[in-house]
Amino acid sequence: MSRINRQLRLKSRPEGLVKREDFDLQEYPVAELKDGEVLVRVLYLSMDPTNRVWMSDIPQYMPPVAIGEVMRGLGLGRVVMSKSANYAEGDLVQGLLGWQDYAVIDDSHLKDYVKLPPRPPVPLPTLLGACGFSGITAYYGLTEIAPVQPGETLVVSAAAGSVGSIVGQIGKLRGARVVGIAGGPEKCRYLIDELGFDAAVDYKAEDWKKALADATPDGVHVNFENVGGPVMRAVLSRMVNGGRVALCGLIANYTSGARPSDDYSVIIVKRLTVRGFLAFDYRDTQKAVQELIGWVLKGRIKAEETIEDGLENAPLVLNQLFEGSNRGKLLLRVSDEV
Amino acid sequence: MSRINRQLRLKSRPEGLVKREDFDLQEYPVAELKDGEVLVRVLYLSMDPTNRVWMSDIPQYMPPVAIGEVMRGLGLGRVVMSKSANYAEGDLVQGLLGWQDYAVIDDSHLKDYVKLPPRPPVPLPTLLGACGFSGITAYYGLTEIAPVQPGETLVVSAAAGSVGSIVGQIGKLRGARVVGIAGGPEKCRYLIDELGFDAAVDYKAEDWKKALADATPDGVHVNFENVGGPVMRAVLSRMVNGGRVALCGLIANYTSGARPSDDYSVIIVKRLTVRGFLAFDYRDTQKAVQELIGWVLKGRIKAEETIEDGLENAPLVLNQLFEGSNRGKLLLRVSDEV
Repeated sequence: MSRINRQLRLKSRPEGLVKREDFDLQEYPVAELKDGEVLVRVLYLSMDPTNRVWMSDIPQYMPPVAIGEVMRGLGLGRVVMSKSANYAEGDLVQGLLGWQDYAVIDDSHLKDYVKLPPRPPVPLPTLLGACGFSGITAYYGLTEIAPVQPGETLVVSAAAGSVGSIVGQIGKLRGARVVGIAGGPEKCRYLIDELGFDAAVDYKAEDWKKALADATPDGVHVNFENVGGPVMRAVLSRMVNGGRVALCGLIANYTSGARPSDDYSVIIVKRLTVRGFLAFDYRDTQKAVQELIGWVLKGRIKAEETIEDGLENAPLVLNQLFEGSNRGKLLLRVSDEV
Repeated sequence: MSRINRQLRLKSRPEGLVKREDFDLQEYPVAELKDGEVLVRVLYLSMDPTNRVWMSDIPQYMPPVAIGEVMRGLGLGRVVMSKSANYAEGDLVQGLLGWQDYAVIDDSHLKDYVKLPPRPPVPLPTLLGACGFSGITAYYGLTEIAPVQPGETLVVSAAAGSVGSIVGQIGKLRGARVVGIAGGPEKCRYLIDELGFDAAVDYKAEDWKKALADATPDGVHVNFENVGGPVMRAVLSRMVNGGRVALCGLIANYTSGARPSDDYSVIIVKRLTVRGFLAFDYRDTQKAVQELIGWVLKGRIKAEETIEDGLENAPLVLNQLFEGSNRGKLLLRVSDEV
């Protein structure tokens, strides 16, 4: 029985939003496994802003994906065949499986993948979202990068997204006053009514800067920044002297093509500490994952996912992140459970 | 005997470089002292980039100087009359004395001024330079804001200036490899031959970016930033992952009138920590001053000043900072010793 592997290979570097034609969908038979190799059926792909960055030929923390290469992407899969002593059939594997149906991984790259037990305590989508890199990002951002203290005001942008929604909830667990910035009244309602934020600011509303000021009467002590651009500038203008910024993402810049026009002077005037970080650097730690799983199981953190179907749709599904149409973690289901 | 006080009052907000006509030189007789008041003869005024910021109506850490107000400025003066129990004739006073011949200070503002002994251990100009706010800025920037460790590479911009020249020398005392960025071959020679920097990059030379790369083969661990703009962008591109930036000044922006076009993304990609700070916040501490005086007396730090004469010349002298024509601390001598 020969399996067919469909792969999305980068054909051209997108400008602005991603187009279907920026990728080639190619099919190859899966080759026979060599010793030490493992065949993984990709179940879910994590749709992340960093995917968009990897498509661009700009300075970044990993090399850009080359033209003709399988698109790089974080995913969760199940081992369907193993010629390695380190994996058994049925094991779950998380890591950079790529935008394809099957990934072959081998013993020499063990450290690049996390092996999970066949039956994890939370649903698979949650493993890639609230208890995966999105949750890890939120966790370390608020504990190590810009620790928030009880009674302080925390502002998080892209607050209804995969990272922002967890940031706000961890902020509440830590006793902070939490203000979320999101697009549209429905997302703002969600933040307050369902996630327990203290206030929400709709950046699509005309008077949003005034709303932000009203929501932060004591200024902003910590900004967990996912967006950049005008949203970030408005939040920085509300920071207290000595405030801290966890700089996680600048999604406003990723598809705009415009030259950023940020201004470092506010960092001096307000004596800010701005720290950039990448959850990627915390990939070897399981401490955050265990704590996040505990919170989800106890209902202290609500995990939400937006799940779309079909490998071939990956390029267009990714755009939801930049159009702001998803809520919680955006995932692509590549295959039903096997 | 009635003394005449000449004052430079802000007449219009400068655009770009400062013009003489942006100020009114006015003369007033010095009024009789009231109880608790002290008359200070201004001896030296410190010419600082922050003076230029105070002239502009932009967000900053103090209110801008109002039109018609005496220009705010740090200075060193001597008490010539005292009706306060806290000051004696002959005491030296440092603080915001303003761009004028005489300042009247009073007991209710004691904490805003530093009283110095009549005969300090270093020359008066050095008290305003290497052992004043410039030295304090360098000291805390390299010890608290972005501590540099032995063997690390430190890059400082505006390296031949009042702060930069001390930063580099403290960096050497702490065992760092020190690279200075300055304008012109003469300043670069000065940094290496006289101040003991390991390398110097002339940002006016055509191939300066390559020179910077050559001078930082192991990347940059700490950037002490005084300039901003293209110089800062080039240094950030050389930072190691996890590097630290002490953000002290953005002098490139102060007179340009151009909207800054910085880019925060490098902070994420390289996981930088960027901390803004103001020496102003350290004005109550004498620890740094004592250590700096000790270093100067032992010859471990060379203090240099560029001294110009005449209160009426203050507006034009200040421009030297933006034209890069001074070396070391830029001072205006308002009066010979009294």
